[in-house]
Amino acid sequence: MLALVLERKGELTLREIELPTAVGADDVKVAIHTVGVCGSDVHYYTHGAIGPFVVREPMVLGHEAAGTIIEVGSNVKNLKVGDRVCMEPGVPNLSSRATKLGIYNVDPDVQFWATPPVHGILAPEVVHPAAFTFKLPDNVSFAEGAMVEPFAVGLQAATRARITPGDVAVVIGCGPIGIMTALAALAGGCSRVFISDLSAPKLEIAAQYAGIVPVNITKQSLADVLSEATESWGADVVFEASGSPRAYQGIFDLVRPGGALVLVGLPVEPTNFDVPAAIVKEARIETVFRYANNFDRAVNLIASGKVDLKPLITDTFDFKDSIAAFDRAAKGLPQDVKLQIRLAS
Amino acid sequence: MLALVLERKGELTLREIELPTAVGADDVKVAIHTVGVCGSDVHYYTHGAIGPFVVREPMVLGHEAAGTIIEVGSNVKNLKVGDRVCMEPGVPNLSSRATKLGIYNVDPDVQFWATPPVHGILAPEVVHPAAFTFKLPDNVSFAEGAMVEPFAVGLQAATRARITPGDVAVVIGCGPIGIMTALAALAGGCSRVFISDLSAPKLEIAAQYAGIVPVNITKQSLADVLSEATESWGADVVFEASGSPRAYQGIFDLVRPGGALVLVGLPVEPTNFDVPAAIVKEARIETVFRYANNFDRAVNLIASGKVDLKPLITDTFDFKDSIAAFDRAAKGLPQDVKLQIRLAS
Amino acid sequence: MLALVLERKGELTLREIELPTAVGADDVKVAIHTVGVCGSDVHYYTHGAIGPFVVREPMVLGHEAAGTIIEVGSNVKNLKVGDRVCMEPGVPNLSSRATKLGIYNVDPDVQFWATPPVHGILAPEVVHPAAFTFKLPDNVSFAEGAMVEPFAVGLQAATRARITPGDVAVVIGCGPIGIMTALAALAGGCSRVFISDLSAPKLEIAAQYAGIVPVNITKQSLADVLSEATESWGADVVFEASGSPRAYQGIFDLVRPGGALVLVGLPVEPTNFDVPAAIVKEARIETVFRYANNFDRAVNLIASGKVDLKPLITDTFDFKDSIAAFDRAAKGLPQDVKLQIRLAS
Amino acid sequence: MLALVLERKGELTLREIELPTAVGADDVKVAIHTVGVCGSDVHYYTHGAIGPFVVREPMVLGHEAAGTIIEVGSNVKNLKVGDRVCMEPGVPNLSSRATKLGIYNVDPDVQFWATPPVHGILAPEVVHPAAFTFKLPDNVSFAEGAMVEPFAVGLQAATRARITPGDVAVVIGCGPIGIMTALAALAGGCSRVFISDLSAPKLEIAAQYAGIVPVNITKQSLADVLSEATESWGADVVFEASGSPRAYQGIFDLVRPGGALVLVGLPVEPTNFDVPAAIVKEARIETVFRYANNFDRAVNLIASGKVDLKPLITDTFDFKDSIAAFDRAAKGLPQDVKLQIRLAS
Repeated sequence: MLALVLERKGELTLREIELPTAVGADDVKVAIHTVGVCGSDVHYYTHGAIGPFVVREPMVLGHEAAGTIIEVGSNVKNLKVGDRVCMEPGVPNLSSRATKLGIYNVDPDVQFWATPPVHGILAPEVVHPAAFTFKLPDNVSFAEGAMVEPFAVGLQAATRARITPGDVAVVIGCGPIGIMTALAALAGGCSRVFISDLSAPKLEIAAQYAGIVPVNITKQSLADVLSEATESWGADVVFEASGSPRAYQGIFDLVRPGGALVLVGLPVEPTNFDVPAAIVKEARIETVFRYANNFDRAVNLIASGKVDLKPLITDTFDFKDSIAAFDRAAKGLPQDVKLQIRLAS
Repeated sequence: MLALVLERKGELTLREIELPTAVGADDVKVAIHTVGVCGSDVHYYTHGAIGPFVVREPMVLGHEAAGTIIEVGSNVKNLKVGDRVCMEPGVPNLSSRATKLGIYNVDPDVQFWATPPVHGILAPEVVHPAAFTFKLPDNVSFAEGAMVEPFAVGLQAATRARITPGDVAVVIGCGPIGIMTALAALAGGCSRVFISDLSAPKLEIAAQYAGIVPVNITKQSLADVLSEATESWGADVVFEASGSPRAYQGIFDLVRPGGALVLVGLPVEPTNFDVPAAIVKEARIETVFRYANNFDRAVNLIASGKVDLKPLITDTFDFKDSIAAFDRAAKGLPQDVKLQIRLAS
Repeated sequence: MLALVLERKGELTLREIELPTAVGADDVKVAIHTVGVCGSDVHYYTHGAIGPFVVREPMVLGHEAAGTIIEVGSNVKNLKVGDRVCMEPGVPNLSSRATKLGIYNVDPDVQFWATPPVHGILAPEVVHPAAFTFKLPDNVSFAEGAMVEPFAVGLQAATRARITPGDVAVVIGCGPIGIMTALAALAGGCSRVFISDLSAPKLEIAAQYAGIVPVNITKQSLADVLSEATESWGADVVFEASGSPRAYQGIFDLVRPGGALVLVGLPVEPTNFDVPAAIVKEARIETVFRYANNFDRAVNLIASGKVDLKPLITDTFDFKDSIAAFDRAAKGLPQDVKLQIRLAS
Repeated sequence: MLALVLERKGELTLREIELPTAVGADDVKVAIHTVGVCGSDVHYYTHGAIGPFVVREPMVLGHEAAGTIIEVGSNVKNLKVGDRVCMEPGVPNLSSRATKLGIYNVDPDVQFWATPPVHGILAPEVVHPAAFTFKLPDNVSFAEGAMVEPFAVGLQAATRARITPGDVAVVIGCGPIGIMTALAALAGGCSRVFISDLSAPKLEIAAQYAGIVPVNITKQSLADVLSEATESWGADVVFEASGSPRAYQGIFDLVRPGGALVLVGLPVEPTNFDVPAAIVKEARIETVFRYANNFDRAVNLIASGKVDLKPLITDTFDFKDSIAAFDRAAKGLPQDVKLQIRLAS
């Protein structure tokens, strides 16, 4: 099958490769329509590894996908040929202790698309378990369907935060995940979300959404803005979505007494943590690893119009131009929130 | 002070009455601007009692109020003369066991406006603890400020539901509280809210809000509509806001396995409850009594534009026409969601 | 295989019957050692049905079992031949929506031993998924291992209650499930558990445990005892384990403001529910259906000595005397908490 | 009034000092019987400060107290002269935002005994709000009553952990707070608690309690012991009670996927935190600041016999020997868990 293959660090080819095609009893086969380019895909391309995950053999990239069902296994009841769907890229061991607890995202045996050595889905077809395939309503496009995966990360953050309706939130970092987190926090019950960054173009993109207040920390102090807005009480929830260790400096000054800090960003360097500052406010700290049980919720929020992700799709490439898409993504232009690749029309 | 006094069941007079005017160290004095007419005020007027609360002496009505601070006590820091505010009508014993637990709404000693023998606030001025007085931002009108109290009931329901972002909800009963609950559930994280009633005019009012799906149970089966919308899974949260014992029939058919039923409506007759139906789904049932710690959240949601209560204000009366306002409210016209009385201009 | 077969209502035979013996890749084969006699087994024997579940064909009884692994499937890692184990009798569809959420006990497709048409395990051997088979430490006997299943019901109730350490609890009904619930509530964090019943012999059995306070409601008012013990505040958690609709009368008088009522017992008749009494205390009501994710916790509590179930095993019968065991159980003697049948020695 | 006064760092005197004696309407006056010596009292003695709290004027020490009520204010209903009581040393602003939320321990305005500039209670009498004074049952001694305060810290940790009944826990650090946390975790629902330290004598004291497993990290790896005990799954809850930054190294290896880390100990140096290790397990991190709403729960657990603190009282001094008691405490002998001072007989 023709696929976008990362041969090794820095080398992408669009070529034929052997991929599984047998449809098991609980599986569906999907004709891929649209795939989003994710920062992790790009990082494998530019660095050949993410932490412990190293690309040692040619690997197909891509894990943000939507398409159309072209075949269903004998046990599949809730889906049929022709259904437009999006897919959850991580498949756990269904018998594992974590899965039985409902936290299959932390199952050590989970198989995740485009995470070495598991192939991704930048190819015309994929076989996937029906249990991790979700129907798209007619009013949700393939392009939006391919946005469900990144939005699900933000939605997981909003869920772990245990928002009380009307909470005031802060999101640190206005990259794609920061914006997704801000939108999920708003849709998830917050009254207002302050989002901070150094990049004016990124903040402009976030600012187009009602309820999101951009804070350019080259011009303002986030702590001051928040203190002003909350009578010095602080935010009910602070989401760290920058992955920068510097963000941790004074971060508990932003959290209200008894509030929550939610860690979404992955700092690469060791991070200094002000434990006494957390303790004196009896803050709760939650962490976010991918997502579980929320693709259906993400689709519902998009379908109902509560969350509009279309403005975040910056550009779309044909499958044949996939490598150009990745080279563009590798540039990391501030205004490029999401680039997508279209495999069908 | 001139006030709207319920002399006894069925008899209202607008007359002078002695009301407290001394401002304590932790109090503020507020010039009342707008007061909403609540179903409970009307019920005292028409029935002279609500359950154990019986009107035995003349009582000033009204508990949904907004106004302007005209005096502050010596300890008051967060408010000043001239601030536009709304007030939480229930004041607990601050030293009570319930209050220390943060659930002051269930403090047996709570003093609540217009609940016998406590006077309400349909009068030019009121003295109130600053701790239960909340500043209105410039973009929130007095009329909206007087809507905070009824909205707070809906918000309490949404809070007790412990909504997971993207939940699908059902609200049974499209009266004022039902609509408030639906709006709070949406703002509080639900993707869609199905609201059911027998009255077409009431459903029309709810239907003007995006995300709220009206279900006229004289024409459709709520269970069928929901089953269709959720692939027979059911709603994550069902709010009972009708107070009708009939609503309890088959109510657990609407709840998904592991879902929640939130009881907002107060049935007067004994209610039959299908315990096995609840158990087989391991449903959680929450109840709602007034509200606690959410007036600030309600104001934030209104100020941010996430919740628009203005369309629910059907008509406004001058203070001198208060009795006419109550007679109109007593008619219970389906299209009358909220009537308000204005004391200042 | 020789098995205790319920031919039809009222007719038990110990005879050969065809049962599955093929061990799948994720399965283990267990030689059954001890099986407890449960009220539901007895009810199928005496009534031929429980609610919608009707015995239409001969069915092997028994679902409280412990034994020794004699064969393991090719994928099984955490268990080996010779391991002493107990088994969770309900096996869900691992791909279902409920299972992915971690609430597989409410998966509509769950297959549960000795629930028509699924066979139970009163037979020398059973094949079972390893994921629902739990190792017994050396200091936990087979007899205790066969008690894990009924204790897991009590533990589910204690878990659903969301006990705050030091809570005061009430358990209504001192039958086997009531006692299991009381022990789980104590081990699960309660400081004291008041247990009520009409039967002195049943209360005597519960009273032998430190921390459990028996209340004979033929002699004392439970409400009075509790009010005295809590300065009229009420219990943090009330467990209804009698299944009697009469227990619901005034039940919210026992619950403290903001407290919880946990429904464990299954009333057969329609139940009257005092909704206003629940609402005025803003009580939370939880329901309990079997159990999920707690067999390992139950085994840990028994192994650590925090929970001693041995005093609840009233009598033990040989496999050949199984019918006698059921006839004895059918008598429902108050002092018979648990009868067990031993298949191996 | 005669009191133990910390004149300045390193200088204690037992001398007359002016202390408030007026009993307000909501207050009680208590004749102090027993006071425990806390590490913080000792730290003020030896260092003159704890973080931002600096002893600038003579201050009475002591905040772990039990005694007898000798006078009650006019509003006090739940207490009477002659009642044996213990007192919660922190009194918040009852009108504050934090207090209304039920988290008065994080009210910035809280007044806490023996925290500069607030006097402690090593004196014959104290006036205290009745709302923060708790009756001791007859079977709880004054010595145990004076242990309620340190136990309440452990109980707060167990409460914040949100233990699921049967959880396996780890406590890092076997000092007084570590032991209190381990006992609270056990009483609060854990099946077993592994407690680690470098000091054999400290571990011996913890080891006398059933359910607590001592781990001497000079001889064993805590990670190995835990992995062996949990089939490599990890602990459901890990409590950090050592306050040592070294404890944070590899701490998430001890936590199971989806488990919790509870921070009780206050590290003085900056602490390095392995955010990716926390995220990959989607761990929840809770922090503990003093306690709220649990003195009554602590008393209940002691009274019911579930928690026995008597073995932790190493030695008792007369009031006249208070300075000797502090000099002994300042030595920090490993076998000295709790020293107490008796003011009455």
